[in-house]
Amino acid sequence: MPDTLSALLSPRSVAVIGASDNIHKIGGRPIYYMQQMGYAGTIYPVNPQRETLQGLRSYPSLDALPETPELAIIVVGGDSAVQAVSDCARLGVGAAIVIASGFGEAGEEGKRQQDEMVRIARDAGLRIVGPNSQGLANFGNGAIASFSTMFIEIPPKDGPVAVVSQSGGTAALVYGLLRNQGIGVRHVHATGNQADVTVSELALAVAHDPDIRLLLLYLETLTDPDVLAEAAAVARARGIPVVAVKSGRSQAGARAAASHTGAMANEDRAVDAFLARHGIWRVDDAHALARCAPLYLRGWEPAGRRLVVVSNSGASCVMATDTADTLGITMAPLSDATQAALGQKLPGFAATGNPVDVTAALLTNSGLFGDVLPVVGDDPQADMVLLDIPVAGMGYDVERFARDAARFADTAGKPIAVAAWQESVASVFRNANVPTFFHAADALAAFHQLTAHRQLLRDVSGETVMPVIGQVSLASAPHTLSEAASLARLAEAGVPVVEHYLCRSADEAVAAWQRIGAPVAVKASSPAVPHKSEHGLVALNCNTRDAIVDAYTSQTRTLDAMQAPCEGVIVARMTRGQRECMVGAHWDPVFGAVLLVGDGGKYVETVKDTTVLLAPASPAAIERAVRRLRMAPLLDGVRGEPALDVAALCKLAAKVGDLVHRAGGEIRSVDLNPVMLNAEGAVVVDGLMEVGGGC
Amino acid sequence: MPDTLSALLSPRSVAVIGASDNIHKIGGRPIYYMQQMGYAGTIYPVNPQRETLQGLRSYPSLDALPETPELAIIVVGGDSAVQAVSDCARLGVGAAIVIASGFGEAGEEGKRQQDEMVRIARDAGLRIVGPNSQGLANFGNGAIASFSTMFIEIPPKDGPVAVVSQSGGTAALVYGLLRNQGIGVRHVHATGNQADVTVSELALAVAHDPDIRLLLLYLETLTDPDVLAEAAAVARARGIPVVAVKSGRSQAGARAAASHTGAMANEDRAVDAFLARHGIWRVDDAHALARCAPLYLRGWEPAGRRLVVVSNSGASCVMATDTADTLGITMAPLSDATQAALGQKLPGFAATGNPVDVTAALLTNSGLFGDVLPVVGDDPQADMVLLDIPVAGMGYDVERFARDAARFADTAGKPIAVAAWQESVASVFRNANVPTFFHAADALAAFHQLTAHRQLLRDVSGETVMPVIGQVSLASAPHTLSEAASLARLAEAGVPVVEHYLCRSADEAVAAWQRIGAPVAVKASSPAVPHKSEHGLVALNCNTRDAIVDAYTSQTRTLDAMQAPCEGVIVARMTRGQRECMVGAHWDPVFGAVLLVGDGGKYVETVKDTTVLLAPASPAAIERAVRRLRMAPLLDGVRGEPALDVAALCKLAAKVGDLVHRAGGEIRSVDLNPVMLNAEGAVVVDGLMEVGGGC
Repeated sequence: MPDTLSALLSPRSVAVIGASDNIHKIGGRPIYYMQQMGYAGTIYPVNPQRETLQGLRSYPSLDALPETPELAIIVVGGDSAVQAVSDCARLGVGAAIVIASGFGEAGEEGKRQQDEMVRIARDAGLRIVGPNSQGLANFGNGAIASFSTMFIEIPPKDGPVAVVSQSGGTAALVYGLLRNQGIGVRHVHATGNQADVTVSELALAVAHDPDIRLLLLYLETLTDPDVLAEAAAVARARGIPVVAVKSGRSQAGARAAASHTGAMANEDRAVDAFLARHGIWRVDDAHALARCAPLYLRGWEPAGRRLVVVSNSGASCVMATDTADTLGITMAPLSDATQAALGQKLPGFAATGNPVDVTAALLTNSGLFGDVLPVVGDDPQADMVLLDIPVAGMGYDVERFARDAARFADTAGKPIAVAAWQESVASVFRNANVPTFFHAADALAAFHQLTAHRQLLRDVSGETVMPVIGQVSLASAPHTLSEAASLARLAEAGVPVVEHYLCRSADEAVAAWQRIGAPVAVKASSPAVPHKSEHGLVALNCNTRDAIVDAYTSQTRTLDAMQAPCEGVIVARMTRGQRECMVGAHWDPVFGAVLLVGDGGKYVETVKDTTVLLAPASPAAIERAVRRLRMAPLLDGVRGEPALDVAALCKLAAKVGDLVHRAGGEIRSVDLNPVMLNAEGAVVVDGLMEVGGGC
Repeated sequence: MPDTLSALLSPRSVAVIGASDNIHKIGGRPIYYMQQMGYAGTIYPVNPQRETLQGLRSYPSLDALPETPELAIIVVGGDSAVQAVSDCARLGVGAAIVIASGFGEAGEEGKRQQDEMVRIARDAGLRIVGPNSQGLANFGNGAIASFSTMFIEIPPKDGPVAVVSQSGGTAALVYGLLRNQGIGVRHVHATGNQADVTVSELALAVAHDPDIRLLLLYLETLTDPDVLAEAAAVARARGIPVVAVKSGRSQAGARAAASHTGAMANEDRAVDAFLARHGIWRVDDAHALARCAPLYLRGWEPAGRRLVVVSNSGASCVMATDTADTLGITMAPLSDATQAALGQKLPGFAATGNPVDVTAALLTNSGLFGDVLPVVGDDPQADMVLLDIPVAGMGYDVERFARDAARFADTAGKPIAVAAWQESVASVFRNANVPTFFHAADALAAFHQLTAHRQLLRDVSGETVMPVIGQVSLASAPHTLSEAASLARLAEAGVPVVEHYLCRSADEAVAAWQRIGAPVAVKASSPAVPHKSEHGLVALNCNTRDAIVDAYTSQTRTLDAMQAPCEGVIVARMTRGQRECMVGAHWDPVFGAVLLVGDGGKYVETVKDTTVLLAPASPAAIERAVRRLRMAPLLDGVRGEPALDVAALCKLAAKVGDLVHRAGGEIRSVDLNPVMLNAEGAVVVDGLMEVGGGC
């Protein structure tokens, strides 16, 4: 764990500035929690109006303490909070948690105070959590520097999960959902406005905690992706799954996040790409964040995604099968031997295929699940089991069902999940440490996540994960390169571009056509006119001297009339593609080079069938993403067409990504459309590049 | 209500064949329930081994009863069940419920017994529910002819909801979910194998119940769509929303359904189209079936889908905004006046836009929700409100929050839903009759359903809903018409087809080309060769006498070599489309004429961007569906292209649908691709038809 954060997570002493005797007040609750949870360090309440407080001696000021505390919890607000930060800085306190709101998220004056706070702290090497933070809680050592009421609502239990969140409410909610599942939680941290310490930094810290086995994150903005990437790398090396919500996905959501924690908007598809690249599974909300925890914590590594559904309701069998299909989970084809063995165990009218319907006979034979599960578990084609129990209660031996399920969970080496909406039923399974969900859709979503996340981690492990590199400083304003200059730069970087010549006279143009020896396109090249066809500056399929001369003459005349600088015309071989694709890249201020690959052609903006990756990306990683596009089935060649050279497209795209990555921000964007894709090769036909410095 | 079903739903007397004194046995439980629930009719236990039973006189046989009962519950199984049905038929019993399993769902012998049962019953006018049925329960009159244990688990309360299901487990599950929400349920009916009485028939019956305000259905097969359509029509007329699960959506699911209730597979997209056409909202599983009930039952008719989110957690505000965006629910733009009024009520650092974050200040000011909600309710741009409370409990005045929410619900005339995962919080809102959900995603899914379902019902109300017409008897085996015959039949029906001539000699072909006066396509026409291009039987862009003669000669020679009958060649004007679309139709044995419209061209099978409707369908209904396709944005004209004549495409498709509908099964399928769509008009270029009778 980084040393600077140990004062936050394992402080030897804690001062509470604005301490209260009332455990229901913000200044009282952390003291109460620390005393309850066996915190072994020293607690220093600071409150000039009290002699003692919750049985502890109270001090009039920070200066009056017998030692400099490692951590200060600053409960007071506004200017007093700034003053308290200043006092901490002066005395050499290691870290401070600023609880009060009304700073960066609340307009100009608050922002100014927050900036002032950070400046003071930075100068002194003091780390700050918040402001607008609910605080941090470490149930591993009782350092509960948090005022969340949730730890009173649902009693804490130390355990293998860490929750790190910008939002205190969400941290508490996820904590509560996990605890209601009986899962122990060690870290519950909220960073608020994260003027200094970020979710990424705390994630990195807790990823080093040897007892942590699952890391759950809630982010409203991401400003330090390199730190989060490092946290993810540590977690991967230790086998800790990382799951994250990054909210503000929609435009309206991003606006709401700005007014919540002053969050800066991120480009959402780049967030997707970033998280995927680092093996972090992204979910949509806090409930989804907690959902898969029971499965992750069992440490199961299913061989595949072939599901067996076992239920005492035939209809639930059918619905779960449908839901699995929607999620791309296949039903395991049970072997004949398995089906024969099931036939011996089940009543005559029960189904022995998959799904396995044990029918209402379960009411009279409580051993049916125990009979069926081992048989299913022995079938090598079965990767995971859903036990769906829509009806139970009086007359059913639920304790026995739970024992049978637990035995399977403990011995089969395959995931099992129970779906039971009746709390009286679900709690029996949970108490037996069997992952239990409210309904089959939830359980299957968790199975999907477990298996797809493992696949993502396998994919990531094959990639060299490059750190995000810093942005170069840019001297000049962004401007567009001419097509000729764009193509030249691409070709120089090894990107295959169409055979073409930049010609400065009609004679040169004719000579170029003759050299090509086939129909050509003639296109005016001017940095001032990126969209040529709208101005009649493109002539296609020219294959006579007259056509070339006419095109040259008319295009240069048009540019003259537009008073646009003319570099000449490009004469390029006419090239067809079995499919017209697009490759784009741009520089994102947070994530660096962002690469787009997908379906191209004139409708590219409308069809929107593209995938986004961070660059540099390997051709293999790009191909995995391209194979998930809607156009993917067309790439294999349909209706007698040959399969397309997807490898060439992905190699081309990888080179574009490398180019933009290496340029470190000097190239603002690259837009290649169409990239002609055929059975052999891919080639750029039209390309434009925007640069922001140099030239 | 149809008279034949009154014996099932309101029997004056009930015999239980195989009655038991033990209320935990299937033969004992209905008697127990009926006595508990105040059933006012007469109960006749039939059990030769008892004198009395649960305090009632028991009879040795059906023949020994003092009167012929209106309803018999047959608990005995196998041949005894068949015998009991036979006895009921002989004595003139009105209806029988056969509980036992092991019939149609369990192989040949069971199927034979089931058929025998039905034959006996039909001859005598006896209606049968089941076999393999959990039975029917009417809590409006205490006629509980069901053995479900769920009525003991969760006490019944009569109310405005009817659940009609093929599956007893699912009926019980939905009942339980509703009751856990505090919602009263009157009808809980399970039809099992529905050898006779179907879900559709019972749905029609309960749609007439004057106290029913919501109808929930679970179907594994649909064999009598006309009856369900009638039930939906009655429900629409009475303002009763109908929501249905039709399981077996996936192939694996359909197989599972077949082994559960012997369900026949339906074409799933036709099911979608059928349900939509009749204003029935389709959901995926039993939990989704119950989900929206609290909103439906309040009877809200929101003006639009503009949402306001109010929460005490900023992060929950952001996540709910993202989720709404995913569902196509927009955030209401609050007026300046509303925002100013909110500013007066909220602490300085709280957000007054939408979402409205009242912040943790709720802990010290319990009136904040009560302050905010009326202000939001007064804004005419706000259609519905989500109150998301991820953190509450100790220190929060939840009772007051619930009163404030209930006041809004009762007075604002706009829907409100609460999201609260803490049961201690949720139960307070539920007790105040405020629709309450476990999390925001659930609540927003329910809002989506409420508003989208209302829109569907508005759409349906503009359509003349045609009954499904019967299939004509088909004399000959299905066969394909030649393209010439297909186009002729389409043209005759008023479908615009490309200008073309069927030519029986090279001279005729040349004359046709001259008449057209433009480049033509030459295509061999033979009923034996539907896929011409694969055999080199299509020549495009012919525009010289030689080309026409060559094409004619080579194509007729090829057909000769294939020994295929030759009708001649079609000479058709070459026609381009700004978009190549497809229109298809086929005859479904259950739903009649099924219409497909969508993106066409050579990749039609791979791109799969089509919509399915039942025919006849109006051009307006078709256009609504087409406007939801992925290609929809392209129809408006992009990149300087003119907008396409979607109305012409839809009119064309409507004519195709009418044609197939009117043919009543004689036309098996129509496959038109491409249909060339331009800025003016749509025209069929290639068309094939398969017919099954006549010619």
